[in-house]
Amino acid sequence: MRMYDIIEKKRDGKELTEEEITFFIDGYTKGEIPDYQVSALMMAIYFQDMTEKERATLTTAMVESGDQIDLSAIAGIKVDKHSTGGVGDTTTLILAPLVASLGVPVAKMSGRGLGHTGGTIDKLESVPGFHVEITNDEFIDLVNKNKVAVIGQSGNLTPADKKLYSLRDVTATVNSIPLIASSIMSKKIAAGADAIVLDVKTGAGAFMKKFDDAKELAKAMVSIGNHVGRKTMAVISDMSQPLGNAIGNSLEVKEAIDTLQGKGPRDLTELCLTLGSQMAVVGNKANSLEEAKARLEENLHNGKAFEQFKLFLASQGGDTSVADDPSLLPKASVQVSLPAKQSGTVASIIADQIGTAAMMLGAGRATKESKIDLSVGIVLHKKIGDKVEKDEPLLTIHANNDDLDTVMNKLYESIQITEEVVKAPSLIYDVITG
Amino acid sequence: MRMYDIIEKKRDGKELTEEEITFFIDGYTKGEIPDYQVSALMMAIYFQDMTEKERATLTTAMVESGDQIDLSAIAGIKVDKHSTGGVGDTTTLILAPLVASLGVPVAKMSGRGLGHTGGTIDKLESVPGFHVEITNDEFIDLVNKNKVAVIGQSGNLTPADKKLYSLRDVTATVNSIPLIASSIMSKKIAAGADAIVLDVKTGAGAFMKKFDDAKELAKAMVSIGNHVGRKTMAVISDMSQPLGNAIGNSLEVKEAIDTLQGKGPRDLTELCLTLGSQMAVVGNKANSLEEAKARLEENLHNGKAFEQFKLFLASQGGDTSVADDPSLLPKASVQVSLPAKQSGTVASIIADQIGTAAMMLGAGRATKESKIDLSVGIVLHKKIGDKVEKDEPLLTIHANNDDLDTVMNKLYESIQITEEVVKAPSLIYDVITG
Repeated sequence: MRMYDIIEKKRDGKELTEEEITFFIDGYTKGEIPDYQVSALMMAIYFQDMTEKERATLTTAMVESGDQIDLSAIAGIKVDKHSTGGVGDTTTLILAPLVASLGVPVAKMSGRGLGHTGGTIDKLESVPGFHVEITNDEFIDLVNKNKVAVIGQSGNLTPADKKLYSLRDVTATVNSIPLIASSIMSKKIAAGADAIVLDVKTGAGAFMKKFDDAKELAKAMVSIGNHVGRKTMAVISDMSQPLGNAIGNSLEVKEAIDTLQGKGPRDLTELCLTLGSQMAVVGNKANSLEEAKARLEENLHNGKAFEQFKLFLASQGGDTSVADDPSLLPKASVQVSLPAKQSGTVASIIADQIGTAAMMLGAGRATKESKIDLSVGIVLHKKIGDKVEKDEPLLTIHANNDDLDTVMNKLYESIQITEEVVKAPSLIYDVITG
Repeated sequence: MRMYDIIEKKRDGKELTEEEITFFIDGYTKGEIPDYQVSALMMAIYFQDMTEKERATLTTAMVESGDQIDLSAIAGIKVDKHSTGGVGDTTTLILAPLVASLGVPVAKMSGRGLGHTGGTIDKLESVPGFHVEITNDEFIDLVNKNKVAVIGQSGNLTPADKKLYSLRDVTATVNSIPLIASSIMSKKIAAGADAIVLDVKTGAGAFMKKFDDAKELAKAMVSIGNHVGRKTMAVISDMSQPLGNAIGNSLEVKEAIDTLQGKGPRDLTELCLTLGSQMAVVGNKANSLEEAKARLEENLHNGKAFEQFKLFLASQGGDTSVADDPSLLPKASVQVSLPAKQSGTVASIIADQIGTAAMMLGAGRATKESKIDLSVGIVLHKKIGDKVEKDEPLLTIHANNDDLDTVMNKLYESIQITEEVVKAPSLIYDVITG
């Protein structure tokens, strides 16, 4: 078998066999196939796409290129959630204890990552004492005992995907549905869950700006998951404006605490209930989405979800007093309001620009070496469709310095106020179940 | 400027600027841009094509990546000919002295090359004493004095093309019209001719099997040439069966000698007159194609072309007695006829398979290190459309060993005889003048 023939075959729009895909992934992982042949193949895939079978085969080959997490020692159906990423996305912090409160085992491997704010682990580390440096055995024991635990990424998971992604990143071949879908799914599958609920974002703050692209990606991932025997579904949700109100690490933890007590922002709560219902049903802890949603909502109000959260924090060394009193979380020295320059209705809040403003405050990492300031960020007081009076605060900036002109200008540019009538955008656009 | 953006722009079907193309070719030649980005760009070009302007710019950038031959010391309009390659293509050996006999200066840089038979230089070295190891000054003097000389390839011509071609060859991106056209034209332009006549072959024995592809390539090359100020035209000619009758080095030299004396095969003579007429007109040595053709034909019969050939051989050390007595050329020890297995009409002679058979006899190089046997080859006695009786010889094999079963089987497979009526194929399909 020759890599040349594989490139040519895909270039000509033909379906690659399992042997061919495995040959290429194995050879590339081992360094036997050079980058320049792989980048040509990636570009051919960009133009010629892959069939559902090819996508599933590529994903499996990438999963098998490295270690796979064995969660079989955990009783029940392990359900993982993945978000394609957005601004102010606090769902994991809420969802994990929320669905655990229904008995769904949540064994979460999480990262720090680059972006507008930190990853789930960064956010959780706003809670004094909380740590994810636990052994695999401890991790599994905790999930069996408490139904929820988070561990840092470890092991050599999907090295083929890492290598491929680095190459795609410099050859303009990232933006390809089969390649994005197989990359995401390979990581989820290697992480060992039995079922996967995907939150695919669409809108200005999302990777997939257009609904049609988001839907295509969602379908592609659901197809891959189901092809390889992991029950998978996807919710397509709005990311035209930030989700919830808080953008920033400890600010999002506070928002998660509020939400787990039934006092969270409407949109964030709604999304958590939607994703959580899917997780509960696929995890066999509810018979219908309606039943699941009712019980999850109940647990937000009867204290069970919040208790589950505190149990989770405590079991990994976290100081639960911050849950009862979020003012103990890391706090920025400066709070500045951004007053509206005119009266009217909020027409748009460009999510990725708000995210960039949060990063400028220090909430996120620009490079792997950057240090995150857990205390800083932005809290929105108005969302799209809300009426606002001139000089009324649109948001509050939480910062650790006074020189906020650049950030304020950026924020003003990101928020449009109109005199016309504006409807709040839908939150959930579609649910893809395969 | 970043290579990433150039790849993305082409991927998205946009036109690259002169600055972008020059940046990429310069950077790649200097080793500053890695292979894996260039192969991704090549694949993007494969799918998105290039505009006429981009093609001309790419060609110029490749020309300027290395040395350029300066032929300005040669009086008159220097006309070069290029063939896209075929089986039994003896035209250069004939055309060079033929058009020189009308006063067109032919300053030919030639190579050995890989393929079914040797290159022009290998063929000429069938003539004892002939050599191409002359200085640039000698070369220019000879062309000024005799109107024709051949020199071996020297200098660092189009290094960008060499590097790009090697990469395309292993990434399934050879077969792209803009890339083929710019590659060929960059070499011709760097070699210094004022005008270029292209012989683009089509049919089973050609790189471009289909007429439409050959026409597209011809148009692309003519456009590039004229864009960069070199008068260029292309003849699209048949290569469904071998050109002329001889395939093999000294066998082709003998055929060239016959043709230069007006005794050559009809198709080879016709093609030389067609290409030669174009060269004579563009070289300002005839006022019309009709006049040019009449005068060239005259020179084939009045001995002028043949005398020009002998002058050319002698001026580069060749023994002209072989021209008067071709039996002095290197001769194979074994001559074996291939008798027809049935009576009928020759329906097809698959050119590239005949070429492969000649290579199996030793007439061509499989690798750069292979040694050519100048004496071996094949002489066809029948061409498509010819009637043949059972047991009548279809061709003669000239070999230096007796074990010819494999070659004979290959040849039988390459020649179809039918009971139906078959017309000889057209020789000239089209002429593209831009």
